Amino acid sequence: MEFGRLDEIRDDLTALYKDLHAHPELSFQEHRTAAEVARRLEALGLEVTSGVGRTGVVGVLRNGSGPTVLLRADFDGLPVQEQTGLEYASTQRATSSDGSDVPVMHACGHDMHVTCLLGALDLLSDSRSSWSGTVVAVFQPAEEFGTGAQAMLDDGFLERFPRPDVCLGQHVFPFESGFVGMMSGPSMSAADSLKITMFGRGGHGSQPQNTVDPVVMASATVLRLQTVVSREVAGDDTAVLTVGSIRAGTKENIIPDQAELLVNIRSFDERVRERVLAAVHRIVRAEAVASGAEREPEFEQLTRFPLLVNDPEAASRTSSALRATFGDHVVDLPPAMASEDVGLFGTAAGVPTCYWFFGGTDSARFQEAVAADNVARAIPANHSPHFAPEVEPTLTTGVKALTSAAIEWLGTRG
Amino acid sequence: MEFGRLDEIRDDLTALYKDLHAHPELSFQEHRTAAEVARRLEALGLEVTSGVGRTGVVGVLRNGSGPTVLLRADFDGLPVQEQTGLEYASTQRATSSDGSDVPVMHACGHDMHVTCLLGALDLLSDSRSSWSGTVVAVFQPAEEFGTGAQAMLDDGFLERFPRPDVCLGQHVFPFESGFVGMMSGPSMSAADSLKITMFGRGGHGSQPQNTVDPVVMASATVLRLQTVVSREVAGDDTAVLTVGSIRAGTKENIIPDQAELLVNIRSFDERVRERVLAAVHRIVRAEAVASGAEREPEFEQLTRFPLLVNDPEAASRTSSALRATFGDHVVDLPPAMASEDVGLFGTAAGVPTCYWFFGGTDSARFQEAVAADNVARAIPANHSPHFAPEVEPTLTTGVKALTSAAIEWLGTRG
Amino acid sequence: MEFGRLDEIRDDLTALYKDLHAHPELSFQEHRTAAEVARRLEALGLEVTSGVGRTGVVGVLRNGSGPTVLLRADFDGLPVQEQTGLEYASTQRATSSDGSDVPVMHACGHDMHVTCLLGALDLLSDSRSSWSGTVVAVFQPAEEFGTGAQAMLDDGFLERFPRPDVCLGQHVFPFESGFVGMMSGPSMSAADSLKITMFGRGGHGSQPQNTVDPVVMASATVLRLQTVVSREVAGDDTAVLTVGSIRAGTKENIIPDQAELLVNIRSFDERVRERVLAAVHRIVRAEAVASGAEREPEFEQLTRFPLLVNDPEAASRTSSALRATFGDHVVDLPPAMASEDVGLFGTAAGVPTCYWFFGGTDSARFQEAVAADNVARAIPANHSPHFAPEVEPTLTTGVKALTSAAIEWLGTRG
Amino acid sequence: MEFGRLDEIRDDLTALYKDLHAHPELSFQEHRTAAEVARRLEALGLEVTSGVGRTGVVGVLRNGSGPTVLLRADFDGLPVQEQTGLEYASTQRATSSDGSDVPVMHACGHDMHVTCLLGALDLLSDSRSSWSGTVVAVFQPAEEFGTGAQAMLDDGFLERFPRPDVCLGQHVFPFESGFVGMMSGPSMSAADSLKITMFGRGGHGSQPQNTVDPVVMASATVLRLQTVVSREVAGDDTAVLTVGSIRAGTKENIIPDQAELLVNIRSFDERVRERVLAAVHRIVRAEAVASGAEREPEFEQLTRFPLLVNDPEAASRTSSALRATFGDHVVDLPPAMASEDVGLFGTAAGVPTCYWFFGGTDSARFQEAVAADNVARAIPANHSPHFAPEVEPTLTTGVKALTSAAIEWLGTRG
Repeated sequence: MEFGRLDEIRDDLTALYKDLHAHPELSFQEHRTAAEVARRLEALGLEVTSGVGRTGVVGVLRNGSGPTVLLRADFDGLPVQEQTGLEYASTQRATSSDGSDVPVMHACGHDMHVTCLLGALDLLSDSRSSWSGTVVAVFQPAEEFGTGAQAMLDDGFLERFPRPDVCLGQHVFPFESGFVGMMSGPSMSAADSLKITMFGRGGHGSQPQNTVDPVVMASATVLRLQTVVSREVAGDDTAVLTVGSIRAGTKENIIPDQAELLVNIRSFDERVRERVLAAVHRIVRAEAVASGAEREPEFEQLTRFPLLVNDPEAASRTSSALRATFGDHVVDLPPAMASEDVGLFGTAAGVPTCYWFFGGTDSARFQEAVAADNVARAIPANHSPHFAPEVEPTLTTGVKALTSAAIEWLGTRG
Repeated sequence: MEFGRLDEIRDDLTALYKDLHAHPELSFQEHRTAAEVARRLEALGLEVTSGVGRTGVVGVLRNGSGPTVLLRADFDGLPVQEQTGLEYASTQRATSSDGSDVPVMHACGHDMHVTCLLGALDLLSDSRSSWSGTVVAVFQPAEEFGTGAQAMLDDGFLERFPRPDVCLGQHVFPFESGFVGMMSGPSMSAADSLKITMFGRGGHGSQPQNTVDPVVMASATVLRLQTVVSREVAGDDTAVLTVGSIRAGTKENIIPDQAELLVNIRSFDERVRERVLAAVHRIVRAEAVASGAEREPEFEQLTRFPLLVNDPEAASRTSSALRATFGDHVVDLPPAMASEDVGLFGTAAGVPTCYWFFGGTDSARFQEAVAADNVARAIPANHSPHFAPEVEPTLTTGVKALTSAAIEWLGTRG
Repeated sequence: MEFGRLDEIRDDLTALYKDLHAHPELSFQEHRTAAEVARRLEALGLEVTSGVGRTGVVGVLRNGSGPTVLLRADFDGLPVQEQTGLEYASTQRATSSDGSDVPVMHACGHDMHVTCLLGALDLLSDSRSSWSGTVVAVFQPAEEFGTGAQAMLDDGFLERFPRPDVCLGQHVFPFESGFVGMMSGPSMSAADSLKITMFGRGGHGSQPQNTVDPVVMASATVLRLQTVVSREVAGDDTAVLTVGSIRAGTKENIIPDQAELLVNIRSFDERVRERVLAAVHRIVRAEAVASGAEREPEFEQLTRFPLLVNDPEAASRTSSALRATFGDHVVDLPPAMASEDVGLFGTAAGVPTCYWFFGGTDSARFQEAVAADNVARAIPANHSPHFAPEVEPTLTTGVKALTSAAIEWLGTRG
Repeated sequence: MEFGRLDEIRDDLTALYKDLHAHPELSFQEHRTAAEVARRLEALGLEVTSGVGRTGVVGVLRNGSGPTVLLRADFDGLPVQEQTGLEYASTQRATSSDGSDVPVMHACGHDMHVTCLLGALDLLSDSRSSWSGTVVAVFQPAEEFGTGAQAMLDDGFLERFPRPDVCLGQHVFPFESGFVGMMSGPSMSAADSLKITMFGRGGHGSQPQNTVDPVVMASATVLRLQTVVSREVAGDDTAVLTVGSIRAGTKENIIPDQAELLVNIRSFDERVRERVLAAVHRIVRAEAVASGAEREPEFEQLTRFPLLVNDPEAASRTSSALRATFGDHVVDLPPAMASEDVGLFGTAAGVPTCYWFFGGTDSARFQEAVAADNVARAIPANHSPHFAPEVEPTLTTGVKALTSAAIEWLGTRG
């Protein structure tokens, strides 16, 4: 496939990327981004629908008979204070869903996703003589909540737009820019986030016998929760259970009334996931009983990301297409301990999903870190205040990858 | 002893009490209170010195040769939101030492202490023909910090004012109003408050292997700290170790960098105290090592209250004097698991301290709670937002107790 | 009182003591000891009944009208391998109640108790002209099980023998020989011993996910049990909870089926005792649930010693009598964290108990340890393989103490 | 390949198998087994060397020029009380290396390994016209200790016998008999077994303050060790850490002097293994410090099994050969959480290892368990007292597999 058109639009895409990066918006607040996306989709001649799943945008590019290919980019930012020092770094702030004023940053590269998808749509639109079929471009809100894809589906996505035959998407990741990485089978972990409140009975710090100490209760629970992975998950299964936050009390000599734990669970297998969740509930309840709690703990599900499964055949076919474009810059990746809701579209439609990573880290810097064996520490990962993809060759790679994959799944003409 | 004068001033004292209650001030911010105290001391004819130990006030009443008796009242309030529903409840707010805006309440009865001491000074001043010697009235700031007495001593208290032969004081407590309770020997616990910061290394919740998890580190520490009392303090020694607060992290899928524990330790014996403190340091450091921490934990001493020892002979002598006034309404009390810095005056001067409690709870209500065996739950204790002494007979009891005890220790005049 | 007779029998008593020491017998197996006791009681002219409560012996010395005084000595040994190096050290072995072959030693001084009581009975018999009343001498089996006194009571003790007006007894203890120590009120702790079996599900060490790991379950339980004393017992109450043994598994790569804990609980107050026992049951059950155990833990009460309360008036009266004999070698002792079933006789009869300690440690050695502040480490305590009272002045002290106390409570004649 | 000869010798092999099963011997005590093996090797015409690595036997079958193929069987039993109920069940007992009298059982199928290798050698000897090269048959002692292969290597194995070009071996496993399972890459876990002794200071259970309680120390350590897998091993790495035994104390009211933990660690990556081992040492030492131990814990390495890596090319080549014999009864297996020292031969010689499993469970029984989803519970695994391979078709499968694989790697003739 030829990518000559990309040279004509690269400067515009670069400017767009920097503008998006400087103007990140929180989940379900992506109004400015959505408007810009819609404007550009219309300019490319697509049928545009805004407000799908609150702030999502869908563009449809019809080009005769043939397969329907869904291309998806997510477009929300994060409540992170950018520290990249870039000239186009974000200084935005916003009101988060809990009412607090927070900084906002594109700390997960969704600005790059949007830019690459718009670039790919331009190329596809420009080359429509060479393929036939339908492209459904999905600009999804609130991926960071794990609820944006479901919001679009709940808003009638499958009924309102052409039903896809395959769902494609990509994510920029902290490995070498210019490379594309493909996974097969279970590819990104399911993730469940829980807020657990444990109830004691407060009192004066000198009289614990008149209290039920929630600090001890919560601490014992945290230790006991370590046994879930160490004892209840097989060595060759995969699960991670993290208590990211424990909070109880404000003063040294006052035993508080309750404690709060925030828990995150990653898994790659529904049976493992269910066993871990059951163990968490069992342990938390039992530790409350052990402390003599007079009230049952409360569990609130904060987010739930599904397991992302790359259909093996779709992954293989897509991988071949990418190799035709990138040669040996396409690599196989193991499953990632990260989570995504992109798979919900394919699951809902009953069609394969294929999702890949493309590198965002400067090549020399990455090689240096590999040589020093400190990639995990030296290269800022997604969600870091220092996360910022090298614009090139990242942008070019992302546009070409999406275009190549789409063409592969669309019908060829002529 | 005759207390006829009390009938003349009771209304004024009651009004003073309610005014003080409605206008509590935080530790070392007791400016309004100090001014009122100074004004009244001058009106009574005492030599008055303000600003001793920042906001303390000292009044000296000289009445010929004879013993010097120190009478002490503390006068700071607490950052508590009053919930008594009294007509004279506090609605005050103030800026606490850490800069935050907080409610203020006389939740520990120091307003009653001030009122009773002023009442006693009036009676002593009025009856000076019947005794000889010197009364040094100490209105101490910042008892709640455990640092007010030391601040006055550091400000030259012993050099600037007549050196006492005995130090007397009293505290209102949630038992039956009209009763006085005397302790002997070690009477109120030493208390040490520590802020402990433990350092991990943060990271993504899905990759604990790249972090040192401070949530687990702090939780293991809390559990291990339970062994200090269970294993290192003899069954017949007394110590209480409470972790009043544990705080780490803000988000479920981010492993934070550090955790903070607030710890309070009560003891009645310096050897026990030292062993407990050493054990806390040892355990915290070892648990950090167990977690693989790369940085030593940090310990900050927040407050330190000394052990209060009532000199047994002074307690016995004072008790006899109180019995002459109150008959069988004087009771022996066991040591209290609460803390006070009043003892520092006697320790610094090398003279006996005698400190007692006087009841503040309505008699019927107290008896009812006793009968129902739920005193600890039914009667609001000091520091509770519901703590409020019954004005009478509490005020009368406090004035008479202080006056009777002072007279006992002063010289009698023919 | 005159003790001239003691000089005549001291050599015989010393020989008896060494013979008993060399021939200790386990609880409820004290046949040789009982026979020797019975023989000597008969020689002294008492009415003798053997086999009371299996192996106990009761001697009654009637001497006219007057009070009935119970004097009690226990006479069982312990399964300890003697390491005193004494010429009369025990080399005995016996079959313990669980069928195993064990060494036996008088490691708790019961041989001294028997000798002193026989000496006192000789003196009382010899001096019967100076007193009137009845002496009931109780040689009790199985004190170490905590069940011997109850066994005698269950065997009709109160119905078969003269009902006592007071119960007296004594115990040799590792303080200075020649001294007697008296307690008042709650004097020796209640003690409950439990065997707890927790059930997991075994399996291969590499596949914990197919097991319920009892090693983790029991370890978590031990840690959680530390919170009973640290959080549920008031600082000024007294309780000790010790897990003396934890046992699970035999091989590193096999997860066993169950774990066993042996727990000992000391307390001085029935409410504290009940709360601690309830907490132990609650925690053990909850930790089993936390582990996902499929079977409830099992609790077996191994021994139960009651709280020993010295009647304050009886203690005071006895103390005065002892002071008449020993002068300032009678001291007040705080409650002891040790346990005794002697009190069951007084409780059953509804009469006061008075029990005291007498020192067994060489005076110089004891003073040296005091000076070096290492009494707890330097002086072998009861149950140690090195425990051995100095024969004199321990024996003389024990005989005189028992005789003096008995005379005090008996009627005087003439 | 033709296996006609097998029909002639099957009865003899079956009898041999049952005889070996009835006469298991402990590691490094395999004298009877070794003698029988040597006798049969000589009968087959091999050059036989006994006593290699204490009790090992090596047979060399030279058949002209060509590759040298090592075939290995291990031949020790286990201290397990057989409960199979088979007519040829073992009733043997022996003195284990720690001096105790123990039952012995072929609970890991090594009797089957020996039988199959002898059968394969018979077939190879019988068919030597069809291949050329050298077969080195290794009958290894003490596989259960993880030290037998090393003992043979330390005894000059590589110098004394023809150097192999490939090392082959097999293990009977609880899946369907008649099937062969092949792994590739890291195939069986490294396993490290440690005995850890933690030192406290004993004393009376009522006086924990005079002790350092090893029960609490060891229990806290067990809980903390759970964090190694939960926090220090990546979700997609594999490690299992099991504390198979915890033992401390014998009596409820005596705090013991020390505690013993037996720990088993499985891993598939040397970096993970080293990190886990380092964490175990760090945690154990730190928990001793947390308890105030006066003596460092002691670590004793009980066994150490290396990681078994099946060379991918060798596995692929061998697998093809097995497929030619068994068709679709050859399956790919994931890595096994079990350990083997067979790989040491290949590692020492610098040549590929290929090791496979063959099923030992009756087909119908296995399918039933699969259908009921309870294979782990229903099918006795290796080391179980109920483990017993179905003799057929297990024996036939094992002989054919070994012969087919050997022929593949030997030179073909004609």
